[in-house]
Amino acid sequence: MTIEFVPEDENYREKVAKSFDRQRAMKTIGITLEEISPGRVVLNMPYNEAYTQQHGFVHAGILSTALDSACGYAAFSLMPEEAAVLSIEYKVNLLAPAKGEKFIITGQVLKAGRTLTVCQSEAYAVSEGKKKLVAQMTGTMMTIIGRKGINQ
Amino acid sequence: MTIEFVPEDENYREKVAKSFDRQRAMKTIGITLEEISPGRVVLNMPYNEAYTQQHGFVHAGILSTALDSACGYAAFSLMPEEAAVLSIEYKVNLLAPAKGEKFIITGQVLKAGRTLTVCQSEAYAVSEGKKKLVAQMTGTMMTIIGRKGINQ
Amino acid sequence: MTIEFVPEDENYREKVAKSFDRQRAMKTIGITLEEISPGRVVLNMPYNEAYTQQHGFVHAGILSTALDSACGYAAFSLMPEEAAVLSIEYKVNLLAPAKGEKFIITGQVLKAGRTLTVCQSEAYAVSEGKKKLVAQMTGTMMTIIGRKGINQ
Amino acid sequence: MTIEFVPEDENYREKVAKSFDRQRAMKTIGITLEEISPGRVVLNMPYNEAYTQQHGFVHAGILSTALDSACGYAAFSLMPEEAAVLSIEYKVNLLAPAKGEKFIITGQVLKAGRTLTVCQSEAYAVSEGKKKLVAQMTGTMMTIIGRKGINQ
Repeated sequence: MTIEFVPEDENYREKVAKSFDRQRAMKTIGITLEEISPGRVVLNMPYNEAYTQQHGFVHAGILSTALDSACGYAAFSLMPEEAAVLSIEYKVNLLAPAKGEKFIITGQVLKAGRTLTVCQSEAYAVSEGKKKLVAQMTGTMMTIIGRKGINQ
Repeated sequence: MTIEFVPEDENYREKVAKSFDRQRAMKTIGITLEEISPGRVVLNMPYNEAYTQQHGFVHAGILSTALDSACGYAAFSLMPEEAAVLSIEYKVNLLAPAKGEKFIITGQVLKAGRTLTVCQSEAYAVSEGKKKLVAQMTGTMMTIIGRKGINQ
Repeated sequence: MTIEFVPEDENYREKVAKSFDRQRAMKTIGITLEEISPGRVVLNMPYNEAYTQQHGFVHAGILSTALDSACGYAAFSLMPEEAAVLSIEYKVNLLAPAKGEKFIITGQVLKAGRTLTVCQSEAYAVSEGKKKLVAQMTGTMMTIIGRKGINQ
Repeated sequence: MTIEFVPEDENYREKVAKSFDRQRAMKTIGITLEEISPGRVVLNMPYNEAYTQQHGFVHAGILSTALDSACGYAAFSLMPEEAAVLSIEYKVNLLAPAKGEKFIITGQVLKAGRTLTVCQSEAYAVSEGKKKLVAQMTGTMMTIIGRKGINQ
């Protein structure tokens, strides 16, 4: 998918990075923002036993945390300066056990609308230099302007 | 919804509790197992700033972590003794900002099949004694028997 | 689920019935509107071989057609007089083969918002007087006001 | 996405075409099978007023009918000779009003497993020679072997 998007806010990189930094969950889990381009971000997440399920794989919800932030910031990169972003809904398919040394998560806008933006994100497990697709998300993100308590 | 289910394993309570205890992510986030009955579980999750998104609400992915475990253990409670459970896919709708003192998460089997079990879970924020529905999940869980590396 | 909703338009019944009548797909497939109450509708669909898949069950997409209309009109019943409704997204779980003499489809609002309304609908197959749940949908519906080409 | 798949049944083209022909819903709606390759199919659907919703767009459920068959046959093309295919669940995002002269629907396998296959499909509206993405589906398809009443 190579869709060209033009961000409404020319300072979209700073805006995305600043908001990402305010997501305490990212810092706690160790998820980092690696790349930002219009309508697309790449995140990195380490494998951490503290966030595993009963078989030692990363918990699906923790993967979802990274996938959701990837969708949210891909969408946010295209939104106007004064907008905030909220996740409305998402669907995750778990394609393979989430084990590996680390995970690369890519988020990409599929359709940007005035109110709603539909995004897709993928999580790849990296193990001994090989990448394997382990989960896929499709989500709907909402542009929020002027709602009390929801600033950028 | 009041569907009566009969668990295949009479020791379903012990089995569910034991597997839940092995989910490191539950301990790390502070999610606890409060109730177990056939095809149904109730979890509790504290509000914790360490797991918030940019507006101070609990991150959607952290809510999903609790919702997914609720679905998984509701399903697991009905499975045969030798079975393990894996999440195949889920869909989450975020209905209101996830803020509150704590969260109550209920998981319920909708349809139990031999291979696949469909569950629904709800997350309620509790604030000053009032419960508010903040998120809903529908998910598909798989019964795994005899697969290498996937024990109970 | 017994949530009490107050429709914004007191003529919600007429409004829903009139819009439903303009859905040509309903007439073509034979889906009828049986009940309307605030935030809830009930539809009926006959079994028709013309809409089956390769095993003689009703095609999942045809079930979705009824489930989506049920969600849409449950949402529409609560919307203001000048609003139109559009489906944004939905998720369907197919729980059992869709065979039977006819199908009853119930749609129910879970959360009504100013812009977005989340609904759930269920399809039951009726066979020899017995009802069986065969499919479940969760969907997001949007309130559209003043958009060109999208009238009621 | 360019994933290389090897079908388990060398007569996958005949198998897919034959099963598609038995889907009465395809014939009734006028959906045709245009291309088959390993893990991928392309369908065509005419615009037909008989299947519209209240604004004259193709009903989301009718689009879902084509999207679901595209997912199902993309998956089926990779399955063993003796297998049948059933849809387990899917999620649809409606990205733009479904209006146009006709629709092209592509289905593609994302991950093929022994029991479950995850697919994605897209619907494009064609109008005055231009293609526009109007809907996207992610779905899970099941390989069924030896279940009574579910032949190929």
